[in-house]
Amino acid sequence: MADRNSPIGVFDSGVGGLTVVREIMRQIPDERIIYFGDTARLPYGSKSRDTILRYTRQNIRFLMAQDVKAIVIACNTATAFALETVEKELSVPIIGVIHAGAKTAVESTRNNKIGIIGTEGTIRSGVYTKVMQAMKKDIEVIGKACPLFVPLVEEGLLHDTVTDEIASRYLSELKGKFIDTLVLGCTHYPLLRSTVGRVMGPEVNLVNPAYETALELKQVLTDNSLMCEVKDQSQDKYRFYVSDLAENFTNFAASILPGQVKETKQINIEQF
Amino acid sequence: MADRNSPIGVFDSGVGGLTVVREIMRQIPDERIIYFGDTARLPYGSKSRDTILRYTRQNIRFLMAQDVKAIVIACNTATAFALETVEKELSVPIIGVIHAGAKTAVESTRNNKIGIIGTEGTIRSGVYTKVMQAMKKDIEVIGKACPLFVPLVEEGLLHDTVTDEIASRYLSELKGKFIDTLVLGCTHYPLLRSTVGRVMGPEVNLVNPAYETALELKQVLTDNSLMCEVKDQSQDKYRFYVSDLAENFTNFAASILPGQVKETKQINIEQF
Repeated sequence: MADRNSPIGVFDSGVGGLTVVREIMRQIPDERIIYFGDTARLPYGSKSRDTILRYTRQNIRFLMAQDVKAIVIACNTATAFALETVEKELSVPIIGVIHAGAKTAVESTRNNKIGIIGTEGTIRSGVYTKVMQAMKKDIEVIGKACPLFVPLVEEGLLHDTVTDEIASRYLSELKGKFIDTLVLGCTHYPLLRSTVGRVMGPEVNLVNPAYETALELKQVLTDNSLMCEVKDQSQDKYRFYVSDLAENFTNFAASILPGQVKETKQINIEQF
Repeated sequence: MADRNSPIGVFDSGVGGLTVVREIMRQIPDERIIYFGDTARLPYGSKSRDTILRYTRQNIRFLMAQDVKAIVIACNTATAFALETVEKELSVPIIGVIHAGAKTAVESTRNNKIGIIGTEGTIRSGVYTKVMQAMKKDIEVIGKACPLFVPLVEEGLLHDTVTDEIASRYLSELKGKFIDTLVLGCTHYPLLRSTVGRVMGPEVNLVNPAYETALELKQVLTDNSLMCEVKDQSQDKYRFYVSDLAENFTNFAASILPGQVKETKQINIEQF
């Protein structure tokens, strides 16, 4: 059974969640981590609540089978559609990426106008609005789905005129609303931070929930007496699993976590 | 059990295969059709052979459970990765979209230089090269993966400067090789026909395998004494199933098959 020296389980639809893993490694470097990327069924952002809930439950069953002591849903869409339901079903602490990012945005806005960009699913769910207005009721939240951002990132067009043009179109509506804070509500989007920042201008504060999520995780582990007490120096400290194309994942992962992802194992997630 | 008046089963990863269904309806209008779009697991083009083979077998099991008399794989990636294997496992005729398109391209080229555009999976498989060189050994085949085309189509940017720019980049290599024939090797691509045609110029002949696949199906049904002999005028003649977001599918389908897709049912494909 899981104890305080067991690993933390983290999952996402693919590689994007590694931006969250990177922050966890920085904030709580002694923790062991098991990561699962559901590359056989990605993307999550264009799919329905019911389907994402079913996938989330399978991903959690896989992680629980590895005796994790806590789970991080490192995917905004899965957090939006499934966290509220699955947290009632679990015996270990579970957090998503929305609460921490929403809290930072609410604390940093001066004019109470916050923008949120994400997948179709995340924006359609309205979860950021709900969470932020529960924290501060006169917050105005303007959401915008940016479905081409993930394919553009995966095509490697991080700094490109096409990406600039698409970003200008997606973000023009948000600029017109004079937001002073923008949440990067998809784990791929921090990789487009410079493009988004240039389009929005220096007066708009960009919030990357990955950093805040790692801090929230540290707090949750502390509150539950689950902080790791041993120093694991083995190869096994960080383990990576995917449901498809392990080699491609390992290659892409190297750009987010240089030197950390030496091997990725493939599993059949439909069996969980 | 399936007889000559049973429906034809057609599947694709999503809506793209409806461009094949449209041609089947035109060429053999008396045939009943059952269509399945695997919207819970799309796209197929970026995933591995093993995963696509597993998905293809599940899709076929679903269609066989509806007593289809023949199956059309209306997806280039699934044809590339799975047709050769699954045709040995089946008791009914099965065809894909690659053979017919390859045949037309080989018959129409004058300079023996043929281009093929498709998903990562289709291009990586090398199947078009193999099939076309088996038909005519001195054919030179130049393949190019165009991973952003499907997201651009799904974002509705069929006639747009961004799509023009991406098409120019993807196709410049093919233009430099002086091909005279280009196969649109993904079922979404006929929707970008005018953009691709403008970039390639009027001297390059564009081949859409959907049309040729419908003709091949008609021949296969005739050869196997499986042409339908009744006129089904019921609502039930064309049936559409998906694994996720049936309503979105119905809406998008209206742009490919106006008036034909009245209702789409959702199933859990992982149970097959």
